[in-house]
Amino acid sequence: MARILECVPNFSEGRDKEKVEEIVNEIRTTEGVKLLDYSSDETHNRSVVTFVGEPKAVIEAAFKAAKKAGEVIDMTTHEGGHPRMGAMDVCPLIPINEVTMEEAVELSKQLGERIGEELGISVYLYEKSATKPERENLAVVRKGQYEGMAEKLKTPGWEPDFGPIELNKKSGVSAVGARMPLVAYNVNLATDNVEIAKAIAKKIRAKGGGFAYCKAMGLLLEDKNLAQVSMNLVDYTHTSVYHAFEFVKREAARYGVNVVNSEVIGLVPMNALIDAAKWYLQIDDFSTNQVLETRLHD
Amino acid sequence: MARILECVPNFSEGRDKEKVEEIVNEIRTTEGVKLLDYSSDETHNRSVVTFVGEPKAVIEAAFKAAKKAGEVIDMTTHEGGHPRMGAMDVCPLIPINEVTMEEAVELSKQLGERIGEELGISVYLYEKSATKPERENLAVVRKGQYEGMAEKLKTPGWEPDFGPIELNKKSGVSAVGARMPLVAYNVNLATDNVEIAKAIAKKIRAKGGGFAYCKAMGLLLEDKNLAQVSMNLVDYTHTSVYHAFEFVKREAARYGVNVVNSEVIGLVPMNALIDAAKWYLQIDDFSTNQVLETRLHD
Repeated sequence: MARILECVPNFSEGRDKEKVEEIVNEIRTTEGVKLLDYSSDETHNRSVVTFVGEPKAVIEAAFKAAKKAGEVIDMTTHEGGHPRMGAMDVCPLIPINEVTMEEAVELSKQLGERIGEELGISVYLYEKSATKPERENLAVVRKGQYEGMAEKLKTPGWEPDFGPIELNKKSGVSAVGARMPLVAYNVNLATDNVEIAKAIAKKIRAKGGGFAYCKAMGLLLEDKNLAQVSMNLVDYTHTSVYHAFEFVKREAARYGVNVVNSEVIGLVPMNALIDAAKWYLQIDDFSTNQVLETRLHD
Repeated sequence: MARILECVPNFSEGRDKEKVEEIVNEIRTTEGVKLLDYSSDETHNRSVVTFVGEPKAVIEAAFKAAKKAGEVIDMTTHEGGHPRMGAMDVCPLIPINEVTMEEAVELSKQLGERIGEELGISVYLYEKSATKPERENLAVVRKGQYEGMAEKLKTPGWEPDFGPIELNKKSGVSAVGARMPLVAYNVNLATDNVEIAKAIAKKIRAKGGGFAYCKAMGLLLEDKNLAQVSMNLVDYTHTSVYHAFEFVKREAARYGVNVVNSEVIGLVPMNALIDAAKWYLQIDDFSTNQVLETRLHD
């Protein structure tokens, strides 16, 4: 399989479909990338685009989309329910296949530099690309939102990583950074007692002393009357799907509760599931190249 | 992911590299197929080619290769250690993705008909494509080998499915048919007692009353001094990798022996492993479309 980088930029336009199409078309027409999905939220006045491809092509497409967003979106008049600070508000780069996190970080810096220098838009590097610990968390980086950015950019310690220290009023500020793919994974319990799901969620997540790359909450599935442990695995290569499953199963047993089933929501990297098969089947030596489907498009 | 058919034709030439290249080039140059592997055995005087692609393109490539094999191979002078009856000796078609077995059978008949009518080579349909029960097993179809085919083709009940009843002396006879992909799967036991592996192999295979689509034997891995249950799962959608693993593990426990690890040999369809992940993780609803990598080449 080819080298694959995923990109999921968020744009501060979710109401004017023509403008969204103009931005998406920049991605759609870039050679070497494939648009997987895009959706707009009118309340948030925001659109999320998912695309993948050869790393260099992905960076080119992301840059072209950032440029177009800067042209068609005017942040001085933007309003919406979701926190935001710029036209291309945030642009995560996600290594999927044969791309290391180090390469993704390097690519995010190349993208950030182009946005800063060629478009004159201030850029903060975040997540794995952050140049300071306090810039890792997007919520912290975006704090103050668009309206507070003119001042924030000039605050000592919050100088942008690329681009002008003066706010680009029309386009605002962009966060660019590399992160792992997120796996949305839920385990359903054979009980309607949501307190058990909540107790397990508190134990499995990093905050509670559980797995380092796991966020979790307990909730009740009203339609099925089942309690669910709902998780986000933010780095499945370190906190795996099967360890999360086995932890929930064991913890539920302590309450005398069985696991009904589990579910993966949305897209998942193939290796997150292949890794589970390898672990349960005790397969030591296996290369992803042995998966027939990966050989189709070398 | 696109519709994918796999094809693994065997040709009766393993010594003259130029002739092998001429045959392989017919496949390599066909639009819409991808050559995955090919290898020649001088002792057997035989070559095996593996390629995949869009079903129609695969049939086209297989036909072109059969035609070229008919041109460059002369069966009247062929000798080698492996049973054979024709220039393109056997051509299995294997559904991999979004192709049903019924479609693969239909495609095998289209291919067989073209070989019979356009090339004047007699064809027996075998495996899932067999028109009579006794033609399912390739060894039975090929019995008598090339030297016995002139007579076999005229024997009542052994008339060819396509092509002439008179033997094409230069090209012989071809077997064409659809079958499931084969998964070569081994489980290694924490013992050097090969008798335990042999006993388990006898129990797990169809012949011994075990799984219907499992062939198995027990052997000793000399370098590791471990007994191994070596299996061929000839239809993983019915006899799954995880059931085979769990059966061997349980049976070994009856002898007080643990499983050290297991191994998949060579190429394996993605779903053979995804199915294992789903079973162990108790995932009820999951579409292969959720695997990110399958979305890259829709």
